[in-house]
Amino acid sequence: MIRAALDAMGADGGSEPLVQGAAQISLENTPIHVVLVGDRDALHAALKRHRHDSNRIDVVHASDYVRMSDKPAATLDARPDCSILRAAELVASGGADVLISAGNTGAVIHAAARSFQRLNGVQRVALCAVHPTVEPHGPKRDPFGLMLDVGATLQCTAEELAAFARMGSCYSRLISHIEAPKVALLSNGCEPTKGTDAVVQAHALLRAGGDLNFAGNIEGLDVPRGTADVVVCEGFVGNIVLKMLEGVSDAARDLARNAHAAKLRYRLGLALLSSGLRRVRELTDWKQYGGAPILGFDQPVIKAHGRSNARAIRNALRLAAKTVQRGLVDELKKSLTR
Amino acid sequence: MIRAALDAMGADGGSEPLVQGAAQISLENTPIHVVLVGDRDALHAALKRHRHDSNRIDVVHASDYVRMSDKPAATLDARPDCSILRAAELVASGGADVLISAGNTGAVIHAAARSFQRLNGVQRVALCAVHPTVEPHGPKRDPFGLMLDVGATLQCTAEELAAFARMGSCYSRLISHIEAPKVALLSNGCEPTKGTDAVVQAHALLRAGGDLNFAGNIEGLDVPRGTADVVVCEGFVGNIVLKMLEGVSDAARDLARNAHAAKLRYRLGLALLSSGLRRVRELTDWKQYGGAPILGFDQPVIKAHGRSNARAIRNALRLAAKTVQRGLVDELKKSLTR
Repeated sequence: MIRAALDAMGADGGSEPLVQGAAQISLENTPIHVVLVGDRDALHAALKRHRHDSNRIDVVHASDYVRMSDKPAATLDARPDCSILRAAELVASGGADVLISAGNTGAVIHAAARSFQRLNGVQRVALCAVHPTVEPHGPKRDPFGLMLDVGATLQCTAEELAAFARMGSCYSRLISHIEAPKVALLSNGCEPTKGTDAVVQAHALLRAGGDLNFAGNIEGLDVPRGTADVVVCEGFVGNIVLKMLEGVSDAARDLARNAHAAKLRYRLGLALLSSGLRRVRELTDWKQYGGAPILGFDQPVIKAHGRSNARAIRNALRLAAKTVQRGLVDELKKSLTR
Repeated sequence: MIRAALDAMGADGGSEPLVQGAAQISLENTPIHVVLVGDRDALHAALKRHRHDSNRIDVVHASDYVRMSDKPAATLDARPDCSILRAAELVASGGADVLISAGNTGAVIHAAARSFQRLNGVQRVALCAVHPTVEPHGPKRDPFGLMLDVGATLQCTAEELAAFARMGSCYSRLISHIEAPKVALLSNGCEPTKGTDAVVQAHALLRAGGDLNFAGNIEGLDVPRGTADVVVCEGFVGNIVLKMLEGVSDAARDLARNAHAAKLRYRLGLALLSSGLRRVRELTDWKQYGGAPILGFDQPVIKAHGRSNARAIRNALRLAAKTVQRGLVDELKKSLTR
């Protein structure tokens, strides 16, 4: 049985979807025991509202929690009994195997950094994200690519980018079953000489290393296309790119909605298209995907989206279990020392 | 009469659309005299194919030109009689008022740098681009925002970013008639402390300057939304963002096309939607927009898209004329010394 420490506070929708997701998982045939970390009374009250197997859910009390708008480091200093710190400590002490949170991303990274060690060869950790692509990936034809870093490490050295490439490849191989994931550096041109100094040097390092299926540089065009399985960039660029994809998706939805309101003819057209649009929406719906890892610590960490519903939490818990079952941390260690 | 030096070689579609655009402009009631720079025989032959006013078009010979795939600096060294160098020299010597090219972007920047001076306060020049937005901009409700830099200067200091902000604001005010353009820095968060070191420092500089309508930082989400009139970023980020927007647009078109092929029902839906889709396509069609400036030189430079058709060239020539009529360079000087 895998023990998952779930920070059950501070998500956009409060504790309810988190408890509900954990309750649903407890009734499934998945070898996961969930430890809900947060306000004891609130969590027990929420558990009463959802059918669950009480042999597979525990509650560990934490008297406080980090809000989405809080400054991460200062808040952790000020609130030592907050849920994310308690959840991370539980994993560090061996009381759980994997950390999951849908709360303040910066606080998750800081809390992990206080309780866990960084792996050898890792100076800075990377926050991963999946993004929708036209090209499918791997044997399951997953319509998503992996991108890292998307905001944990804003500015990177070449060595840090190379470590991200190795960790991203390792994760993609283990979790998406892609035998030799195509890894690429995001740059302003395909030639090895294109990019910032760090990107140019990282290109040379990865080319010389020879241990990855390194596809060289890709351009902005290739991100939605899905040319690579793993896209590597510094956090500043990754954050902008990822949020822009969200923005484009919102813009397309708004345009469709306005057209819809404007004319009956459009409404008819949209109705006829709707099953197709539904499929596209399904493909790009982050709620299906439980979350993405923070890579570089000696314990597995899964960050779920702040707006996760119960289904997303269920998927995050399944993903968390996979990282333990497949020995992600040991595999990361190997990939970094190659 | 404004004299426009049009580098008539090296665009994706060859000289034909360039000559055709110039021919069409010569018959219009626009005070532009076009100097076509390139292979004399080829350009005269092309002119014969398009009705034009020969009093308003000249040809200046250049025996060679830069290809799209050429390395800019080395090629300019090797081919001193190439069309972009000759066109830039013509402007520098007073033989023309503005430089326009649809050729190799790097070669345009390098040729301009060899013939022109940088303005006081400009260490590095900026390539601008327009990008489609949901929110309209300015009194003409232009569905485009301005972004700079998108590839001329990959890595920037804070001072360079601040100069880009001033120049972008000035250009937007003069050309789009926006009285006090909203200028923003693209970053990974809205707070003044978010971003790379250069972005954080540029934020402080612009806030302290007080001469612009500085809206602070915007995030990736705000790019397609169009929150700001002028988006400022370093060239590495701008290039990736811009190409990603192209990639998303291609992806959406492909998805629509596949849906179209797949089912009669989709086809019917698309047909009903087509007038709406056509409007969206029109709004986001770069061919309508002639080009975007390279800002920072003491002469105006317009870069048209490599794939420009005759209509885009006509618009680029009109835009070039506006930069001269409205005294862009003098206004840039004023905005930089404030």
